[in-house]
Amino acid sequence: MPTGPGDVLELIRRGHARTRGEVAGATGLSRMTVAQRVDALLSAGLLVEGHLGDATGGRRPRSLRFNAGHARVLAASVDTTHTRVALTDLDGRVLADCDVDVPVSSGPARTLDALGAAALELTGGPAGLRPVCGVGVSVPGPVDPDTGRPSQPPIMPGWDGYPIADHVGALLPGVPVLTANDADAAAVGEHASGQAGTRALCLVKVSTGIGTGIVIDGRPYRGADGGAGDIGHVRLRSHADAVCMCGARGCLAAVASGRAVAKALTALGIPAESGRDVRALLAAGSPEAARLTQEAGRLVGEVMATVVSVLNPQVVVIGGALASSHLIAGIRETLYTLSLPRATRHLALQLGRLGEDAPVVGLTRLVVEDHFSAAAVNARLG
Amino acid sequence: MPTGPGDVLELIRRGHARTRGEVAGATGLSRMTVAQRVDALLSAGLLVEGHLGDATGGRRPRSLRFNAGHARVLAASVDTTHTRVALTDLDGRVLADCDVDVPVSSGPARTLDALGAAALELTGGPAGLRPVCGVGVSVPGPVDPDTGRPSQPPIMPGWDGYPIADHVGALLPGVPVLTANDADAAAVGEHASGQAGTRALCLVKVSTGIGTGIVIDGRPYRGADGGAGDIGHVRLRSHADAVCMCGARGCLAAVASGRAVAKALTALGIPAESGRDVRALLAAGSPEAARLTQEAGRLVGEVMATVVSVLNPQVVVIGGALASSHLIAGIRETLYTLSLPRATRHLALQLGRLGEDAPVVGLTRLVVEDHFSAAAVNARLG
Repeated sequence: MPTGPGDVLELIRRGHARTRGEVAGATGLSRMTVAQRVDALLSAGLLVEGHLGDATGGRRPRSLRFNAGHARVLAASVDTTHTRVALTDLDGRVLADCDVDVPVSSGPARTLDALGAAALELTGGPAGLRPVCGVGVSVPGPVDPDTGRPSQPPIMPGWDGYPIADHVGALLPGVPVLTANDADAAAVGEHASGQAGTRALCLVKVSTGIGTGIVIDGRPYRGADGGAGDIGHVRLRSHADAVCMCGARGCLAAVASGRAVAKALTALGIPAESGRDVRALLAAGSPEAARLTQEAGRLVGEVMATVVSVLNPQVVVIGGALASSHLIAGIRETLYTLSLPRATRHLALQLGRLGEDAPVVGLTRLVVEDHFSAAAVNARLG
Repeated sequence: MPTGPGDVLELIRRGHARTRGEVAGATGLSRMTVAQRVDALLSAGLLVEGHLGDATGGRRPRSLRFNAGHARVLAASVDTTHTRVALTDLDGRVLADCDVDVPVSSGPARTLDALGAAALELTGGPAGLRPVCGVGVSVPGPVDPDTGRPSQPPIMPGWDGYPIADHVGALLPGVPVLTANDADAAAVGEHASGQAGTRALCLVKVSTGIGTGIVIDGRPYRGADGGAGDIGHVRLRSHADAVCMCGARGCLAAVASGRAVAKALTALGIPAESGRDVRALLAAGSPEAARLTQEAGRLVGEVMATVVSVLNPQVVVIGGALASSHLIAGIRETLYTLSLPRATRHLALQLGRLGEDAPVVGLTRLVVEDHFSAAAVNARLG
């Protein structure tokens, strides 16, 4: 509970204080101690002083804000068909990015090697890693919150228990590595981008697989062992025979994922394999893709009726490759029919604002929360 | 962030510090300031000094603990058929209690008048209210977290938006009133009783109605507008015609609640009306009651498969009038069949330890957390 420079930075970073006076008010520290803490943060380059604020008395206070240019973050979102790698500032603004076409099914070693090479390309080589304070890696499967390793991921053959952080850390020496589930990262990204006041936000990602990410009181909710939000393998009694790639039958992902829609399209003579292929067909105006995506939405909405009744979120964000007006129309249909009106009375059901950048922005936020936590900054500056 | 006596009390109350030395270590306060804070708490009667602890050096430190006898709490759990009223100490130990047989359907005025009269009987009249620091009232329906009033409760005719706190406050003058959903209160009670280390706990109450209470990181999770956990009115496609008392069709509560089981028993020539009647029949060994309760459990388990996939709790506690080996057997059957093995791998599915006392113990805890919060104690002693 001692109030060090890290606590002061946290107040400013979260927007709870914008001047030295507000820091003093919020912490109970003397003006002199506040001045010392702020000076330390200014000389470390963690804060910048802004334009003059409004007059509150004699002198006009200088505004303080977190220096988003103080360092860089590498964020890599591993998806079933490809990996997106981005170099961002501390606010999550993408400075450079690229897509690496290595499917997750090629295993962790090949995927992470490609990821590391792309990251080094973005930084302009190992010397460019110096300003990078952390790398965040998201994967399309559950991550154990204690070990940071994938935990029995249904659609990531060979990844169970793999030490992602060790592998990436060896390729990007000196940079701390953090791992997350991709729907969790996307939920954090969407929450940070204009939904920051939301108590409870749920993001549904419908891509090659299906998952949800939950943000409660500004923090990702991961559950007892990292499995929270994993609705892709809830079984639907109405589709008990559909074979899922997890090995079971009747899973939501077996009938409503991008892979399932792609399979149904292929059966109609329209070749498609992944969620990305379906997205391309939707963009090209394929009526079959639109119809099947809406039908997938109806099944997702059926499960979401229970999710919304349990979590009572303010916002449900639809993300992933299949995110579209067709998908949302289908979800809306069953979600509103199968849940109590009071559960959806104040619910905003909407497409994500960030599109494919959502996990990358969320990873940046997670790295920043970790690297610039009050405790970490106190330890570095104390 | 200033560390007042209330912060010190909170550390001790939560078991994070047990001696003056541990308080100093946890807060960064000087030994002299800690001594002042502790002295203030001792003279206010909020702490008691215990036996000598283990030696750590020269002097042997005195242990400090929260004084559960410092004040009393009134806790009243309103249920569909009756209200349970208890006078407890600050640890939730029941000192005296009684049941009031007023059904919730008789409306808020009659129910709360009877509740107030019973409370005054337990305290031995208005003079006995002096040591009572708060009264907690739980109801079998959603409670708006901002107003504390019932919010569109499906099975509480006449209670929507009713100012429970004002009504009870007028009957028990000078005592602050707090309201909660009954499944939330029961979840807090079970969490406080031996599950305190659990990150995520979910309690399913199957009584005349059905609801769940969720405790995350020690605090009740209520959702965006108090509706979290309200799974009784999720609709089952397989029972789309069953008419629910909420007015809709196909609700889980229409086919798996105590009321639904009672109705099915009555149709078999075994008269029953409420969850309590079913409980009595189960206790008497009725095979029909056992069979129908297990079947109800299967349907509850079907919805719980999604709940467990979303929340990934460590513990699911079964409570309410129908809580029994028959109910839990039914829940286990479908819950484990319809969810991913990893969602239930570390899950403990168990009957509650507190039985009908769970909401009362939980309400006591909520009143104590409110009345003895760091901010409240700082304001009173500061």
